Amino acid sequence: MFTLYYAPHTCALASHIALIEAGACYALQRIDFARAEQREAPYLAVNPKGRVPAMATPRGILTETPAMLAFIAQNFPAAQLAPLDDPFAFAEVQAVNSFICSTLHVAHAHRMRGHRWADDPAAIAAMQRKVPESVGACFELIEQHMLKGPWVMGERYTICDPYLFTVAQWLEADGVDPARFPGVITHRERVAARPAVQKAITEELG
Amino acid sequence: MFTLYYAPHTCALASHIALIEAGACYALQRIDFARAEQREAPYLAVNPKGRVPAMATPRGILTETPAMLAFIAQNFPAAQLAPLDDPFAFAEVQAVNSFICSTLHVAHAHRMRGHRWADDPAAIAAMQRKVPESVGACFELIEQHMLKGPWVMGERYTICDPYLFTVAQWLEADGVDPARFPGVITHRERVAARPAVQKAITEELG
Repeated sequence: MFTLYYAPHTCALASHIALIEAGACYALQRIDFARAEQREAPYLAVNPKGRVPAMATPRGILTETPAMLAFIAQNFPAAQLAPLDDPFAFAEVQAVNSFICSTLHVAHAHRMRGHRWADDPAAIAAMQRKVPESVGACFELIEQHMLKGPWVMGERYTICDPYLFTVAQWLEADGVDPARFPGVITHRERVAARPAVQKAITEELG
Repeated sequence: MFTLYYAPHTCALASHIALIEAGACYALQRIDFARAEQREAPYLAVNPKGRVPAMATPRGILTETPAMLAFIAQNFPAAQLAPLDDPFAFAEVQAVNSFICSTLHVAHAHRMRGHRWADDPAAIAAMQRKVPESVGACFELIEQHMLKGPWVMGERYTICDPYLFTVAQWLEADGVDPARFPGVITHRERVAARPAVQKAITEELG
């Protein structure tokens, strides 16, 4: 049994979907961002970073989406969510997920979380103004160089797919014109149609 | 044979060290940041992201430090650079590396690469002012919650160690008082004493 700590509209959705695709037995624990529950002592005891997602396992807590996704794939090998027996192919999967985490998600975060990197309100506003450009540049790289189709890695659905799907949810709110990225949008629709994804979204948003 | 594309004083050092620790056969290709070679067509053909590191392998190019480090560990299992047969322990390793990549390195990047997230010079200056605080907060988490000692994951040297060592090189330049983090500094000295690390630094800095 795993317990996934999540908040709606966050990258926790990627791990949530992967748990369902893997056939894992899991419980959900919603963290209320409206009252900054992620900064309260009970949650900091789970994840001192004060962020979601985190996942309680019988061995302890795991954090960081790329690590959690790889764990889910490795722990449920029958689900074939990653090329586990091929270190190079596995590294290609991980490279996409690391890019989503450290470049795309970070660019996106400058819209709502600029206070992490500057105190001055004018600087935070300047960061927000650049989000369409910086997030757009990330999706340009994904569209041109990473998304093989029909799934991110080609014929096989992997842990890259729920992660790209999750961050592609934010495209319009980030001020990026989705018409620039037909491959990403087609992929987003293809992932959205999967029963596991519909189940995860229903569980998070009711 | 692998070819590592690197620039001195970047996170490419982590993969460079890991290649040596793994006993890999590798060549180095220095990318000249002074003339922005990472933005020129020949390198963009290697890595369209225009960043280092990248690594050419017989199967193709790999990018993203956490993915490359995990690949090196998996491709050279005899070197025992990660707990490859234990998905939970492997995920703990990956969680540390993902945090270093997506939170610590990103905080650091706001000192020299603020133009990625804002155009206004005043905003870029505001980002620079916050780097000691944001990078310091990352090292606080590492010191208190991640660094088990003597190595990051405890008794076993893993792919977390060269990565933490690499980013800990930047502490003083980021305006963080190293006296706050005796565990990190002791770890940095312990890693620096390894022959593989001395070899990597000599190869990069001459």
